[in-house]
Amino acid sequence: MSKFWSEATKRCVPYVPGEQLNRTNIIKLNTNENPYPPSPKVIKAIIEETDRNLNLYPSPTADKLKEEIAAFHHLSKANIFVGNGSDEILAFAFMAFFDSNRKIKYPAISYSFYPVYAKLFNIQSEQVPLNADFTIPVEDFFNSEGGVIFPNPNAPTGIYLEIESVKEILEHNSDQVVIVDEAYIDFASESAVSLINSYENLLVIQTMSKSRSLAGLRVGFALGQPDLIEGLGRIKDSFNSYTVDRLAINGAEAAIKDVDYFNDTRNRIIQTREWTIAEMNKRGFSVLPSQTNFIFATHPEQEASQLYSSLKEKGILVRHFQKKPIEDYIRITIGTDEQMQTFFKTLDVII
Amino acid sequence: MSKFWSEATKRCVPYVPGEQLNRTNIIKLNTNENPYPPSPKVIKAIIEETDRNLNLYPSPTADKLKEEIAAFHHLSKANIFVGNGSDEILAFAFMAFFDSNRKIKYPAISYSFYPVYAKLFNIQSEQVPLNADFTIPVEDFFNSEGGVIFPNPNAPTGIYLEIESVKEILEHNSDQVVIVDEAYIDFASESAVSLINSYENLLVIQTMSKSRSLAGLRVGFALGQPDLIEGLGRIKDSFNSYTVDRLAINGAEAAIKDVDYFNDTRNRIIQTREWTIAEMNKRGFSVLPSQTNFIFATHPEQEASQLYSSLKEKGILVRHFQKKPIEDYIRITIGTDEQMQTFFKTLDVII
Repeated sequence: MSKFWSEATKRCVPYVPGEQLNRTNIIKLNTNENPYPPSPKVIKAIIEETDRNLNLYPSPTADKLKEEIAAFHHLSKANIFVGNGSDEILAFAFMAFFDSNRKIKYPAISYSFYPVYAKLFNIQSEQVPLNADFTIPVEDFFNSEGGVIFPNPNAPTGIYLEIESVKEILEHNSDQVVIVDEAYIDFASESAVSLINSYENLLVIQTMSKSRSLAGLRVGFALGQPDLIEGLGRIKDSFNSYTVDRLAINGAEAAIKDVDYFNDTRNRIIQTREWTIAEMNKRGFSVLPSQTNFIFATHPEQEASQLYSSLKEKGILVRHFQKKPIEDYIRITIGTDEQMQTFFKTLDVII
Repeated sequence: MSKFWSEATKRCVPYVPGEQLNRTNIIKLNTNENPYPPSPKVIKAIIEETDRNLNLYPSPTADKLKEEIAAFHHLSKANIFVGNGSDEILAFAFMAFFDSNRKIKYPAISYSFYPVYAKLFNIQSEQVPLNADFTIPVEDFFNSEGGVIFPNPNAPTGIYLEIESVKEILEHNSDQVVIVDEAYIDFASESAVSLINSYENLLVIQTMSKSRSLAGLRVGFALGQPDLIEGLGRIKDSFNSYTVDRLAINGAEAAIKDVDYFNDTRNRIIQTREWTIAEMNKRGFSVLPSQTNFIFATHPEQEASQLYSSLKEKGILVRHFQKKPIEDYIRITIGTDEQMQTFFKTLDVII
């Protein structure tokens, strides 16, 4: 604690991202990255841009990228905000729509960055406990004082909330912003994007880090009615004019346009996920119903923290949260078929 | 104004970056970019990284880049913070070291993002008027309540403040953080980095956007004693774990290592600047003593706003600030020798 730190610096409790080991030959199933490389068209677009104008600032508005995202989602440019990964957009959204003195709601088991933002921006929050089966208790999110945020599908459970329930939450918070954090939606059934024209209080946040294999490039986007998009823009333009660089803008444009590659890789991951769940079940694990690129699993006899350590020792990184009521679970990112076969070979040695 | 906006969103007054025209054949002398491309080694490093692991998150700590910057500045890794351009670091620094209820000081004529941050974070500030010759009134920065921030050299004046004066400001604010924003320092005589080991309240912020030709890549860094660096890290890790992407990290590493290219291009710009000032003087302009990659000039008979418009009409963008007491000045970024020759040809037609 330094005498030079502000109240915010003293107050905040920084997020700890999943481990990034420097060892080679490790199978990394701990931070929900996509095991496939980005589309070859993305690589090409980046390489072309590298030799062009890196000495000049990027477009502060990234209009062409916004247009591509709007076209993909059948919306218009005024519905789109782009940022440096969905985390930056979440931070901007906390600043843009939430106030200290109005309590917001988010699930008690959820993306662990939400309480971090709440601390940083000094926003009071109610952490709503999940149901016993880890589903979202819809009615408990009604009538928030200051707004609502939840991931759909939820993390780290992987459980998807039906669109009808999302609608109910929107309708019972009509004067508050409801943020649906859809980082994993491309591995699930239906996005809330279709609701944007009907609900002025809905902000959907998506990312190119997972389904478009671009975690290393830092591009996320938000979708909502123009008032909300303008709110995010006001905060961003008061913070950093250019948060998405030239290479990221060009790579992201190519990624959103290559729909075939996107569908091919996400379908492969969904197939591998279903196979992985079946294999886990064979070994006595219970796996929560996942609509993401990871699974959340528990075993009646194996201690989760022990499993995590044994796997790590043998070169396989998964994630374990030392937190009630999920301390008996491990979260496993879906890798390639080959990686998952190695995972099971290793698991079978351990259990 | 939307009912969904937070107090911060309503309060803030976003920064307006210099125009980015889409016209080709324009000479862009308005946002202080470097006219030379980045080092070929930077291009090579980026292209190599493009084909490698873009699907994986970048290092959240960017340790290798920090080590390279530390080596360049004869400091250690614990003295270095890296961020998405110096603007992001400035925003983090406002959050990390300034509090709403303690008034900070910055020059009234200065980087126009400072009042934007102050509004966003609701930090009271005293805008200290410059001396009549546009130099910084050193004693007026003594004994601030909440901290001090100023660019050195100052922008948009281009005037450099001697290190002895920086020391005085540091000594008379020993319980407050003094941020020296050195975006243009590589075109000036001496950085305050040499003072870091002597002043625990000094934070120096630099960027790769200007002297290293990487405005399009978004990399800046801060230098200070470990307490201050840790403060910045706490805020960043409460905001967005990975703000500098894989390509930017690798490009920046190559840029900081290629000292020859750096020295060659910045010396060329300094030479062109001196030639440009002489040419301006020949045409009756007064030019403030510049230690940056731009000049700030006024003419006894030509109206600055008119000059700005006439130049723009003829395809040359410079910057004009409609603000007292600098409304009679235009700011001209130093381009290549060729660009400056075209600039003077055009200017001679106008005046």
